[in-house]
Amino acid sequence: MANYADRLSAAIRAKSSRVCVGLDPRVDGLPPPLSDMARSGPGGAAEACRIFCCEIADAVADCAAAVKPQAAFFEALGPAGYQALWDVIAYARALGLVVILDAKRSDIGSTAEAYAEAYFAPPADLPPVDALTVNGYLGSDGIRPFVQAAEKVAGGIYVLAKTSNSSSGELQDLTLEGPERGVAVYRRMAELIAKWGAAGVGESGYSAVGAVVGATYPEQLAELRAAVPTVPFLVPGYGAQGAGAAEVAGAFDDDGLGAVVNSSRGIIVAYRTEPYASRYGPAGYAAAAAAATADMAAAINRAIGL
Amino acid sequence: MANYADRLSAAIRAKSSRVCVGLDPRVDGLPPPLSDMARSGPGGAAEACRIFCCEIADAVADCAAAVKPQAAFFEALGPAGYQALWDVIAYARALGLVVILDAKRSDIGSTAEAYAEAYFAPPADLPPVDALTVNGYLGSDGIRPFVQAAEKVAGGIYVLAKTSNSSSGELQDLTLEGPERGVAVYRRMAELIAKWGAAGVGESGYSAVGAVVGATYPEQLAELRAAVPTVPFLVPGYGAQGAGAAEVAGAFDDDGLGAVVNSSRGIIVAYRTEPYASRYGPAGYAAAAAAATADMAAAINRAIGL
Repeated sequence: MANYADRLSAAIRAKSSRVCVGLDPRVDGLPPPLSDMARSGPGGAAEACRIFCCEIADAVADCAAAVKPQAAFFEALGPAGYQALWDVIAYARALGLVVILDAKRSDIGSTAEAYAEAYFAPPADLPPVDALTVNGYLGSDGIRPFVQAAEKVAGGIYVLAKTSNSSSGELQDLTLEGPERGVAVYRRMAELIAKWGAAGVGESGYSAVGAVVGATYPEQLAELRAAVPTVPFLVPGYGAQGAGAAEVAGAFDDDGLGAVVNSSRGIIVAYRTEPYASRYGPAGYAAAAAAATADMAAAINRAIGL
Repeated sequence: MANYADRLSAAIRAKSSRVCVGLDPRVDGLPPPLSDMARSGPGGAAEACRIFCCEIADAVADCAAAVKPQAAFFEALGPAGYQALWDVIAYARALGLVVILDAKRSDIGSTAEAYAEAYFAPPADLPPVDALTVNGYLGSDGIRPFVQAAEKVAGGIYVLAKTSNSSSGELQDLTLEGPERGVAVYRRMAELIAKWGAAGVGESGYSAVGAVVGATYPEQLAELRAAVPTVPFLVPGYGAQGAGAAEVAGAFDDDGLGAVVNSSRGIIVAYRTEPYASRYGPAGYAAAAAAATADMAAAINRAIGL
């Protein structure tokens, strides 16, 4: 079985798309009639979010390299929401989509093993996710269990390095003294990430241990692309958070590989904004999402000269 | 309503116990006949873990200041496990126990709001947790939503500062240059934590924004106790991870407040180790857990001269 990065690279090439569609089912972002179903209680909200995410996954399956369900929005709906998260994961995997679960889990030792098992070796007939986001603040003990569990299913992880939010610098941009003199925390984290994945670099030149690097910091994105050439990137912050195709170009290598760029609101609620709103309307939310995905894929491809 | 730290301090005083019992339901740690039930499939495993944790909570309710369910072990059992986690939270809260959910969540903006809502304002008739562990790598954007949601229910959070694992120093012990010269990352994180909680210091002198500081690093524990006197600590690493009462003494102030010390395996599988194994046997696992909790509470009280 190919490694995770090879599988993702194959999807990028086959679809000529570097877009990851973020499945963030905010109840207040649902179109009618799903919005009415959602107001009928937590069970209704979970069911409405499940239907919405599955329909979006269907619509973008041909033009998205991956989808990224955000665990937080499902957990906010209680146990019914957590069941819906798994239904969406299973549905998207059955469509052949690469599924990156954004759950930012972190722990140590046998507890990290339990999280890794939860998502890479889940019980019963649940499929494993293709990749999981994790937080590396705890060091190697907190990462190794995820790497080992992912490897068994040709899966991968993305470790937070430089996040897209405005306060990410409070800790991540502090610079170190001693042998690391002048190196920022996010850069040191990226180097640890490269080390964690070094044993499993695939044919595409990338390992199964990736980094989350925000599109809102294009200089750091380009710096890290050069510094850790075997680390695949998951790049959030496109669209609603302010970055465009020019800002993410630095995430890619000369072959147009090495990253997927996530957009959530810009795609799943595209039906509310122009040019999609007048073309598709609320009832055409899935078609609007597909059009927004294709447009974003084309914009990124143009920005990197493809 | 009192703030979180005041409520926890009241529980510590009422029970003369600084012990937090970690509810880490490993399937291979279950006693018979629950171990047989657990082998009957993921639904059986979730039900066995639910029963086990509720029985432990019952047994330790009078001698534990708090209980700490570990989300990872429940998530590893799929949706049925996640339902069992909520059943355990509701059961322990109904017993009057302070419930610290160890989930180490982290995200930014509206996604962090969704996680905060999931645990401090859950849907339907689920009760909020008293406190949640979170990861502060993303900075203030990733913490503020949790602080705000917790405050509405007199809840609290514990942010990872210096974790108990052997590789925690890979990032956390690196020292900074510039105006922070010589300060370690974990210390800088603790100072951020103090700032995040500064607006809400309660009558006990502690805020609702705590820090996770491992018992396995007693020097850093004492350093941080002095450096951030308003930050309540959650101290893992006691027992199975190697630290004893002497190592955690530095976590407490002169009144014996300011921290709870967690033990998981040392209590919930006490029935397998002496002196509890011969006294209680596998069938007496709940009584063994209560005895181990009382012994640990007494050992910590002795170590701090109470």
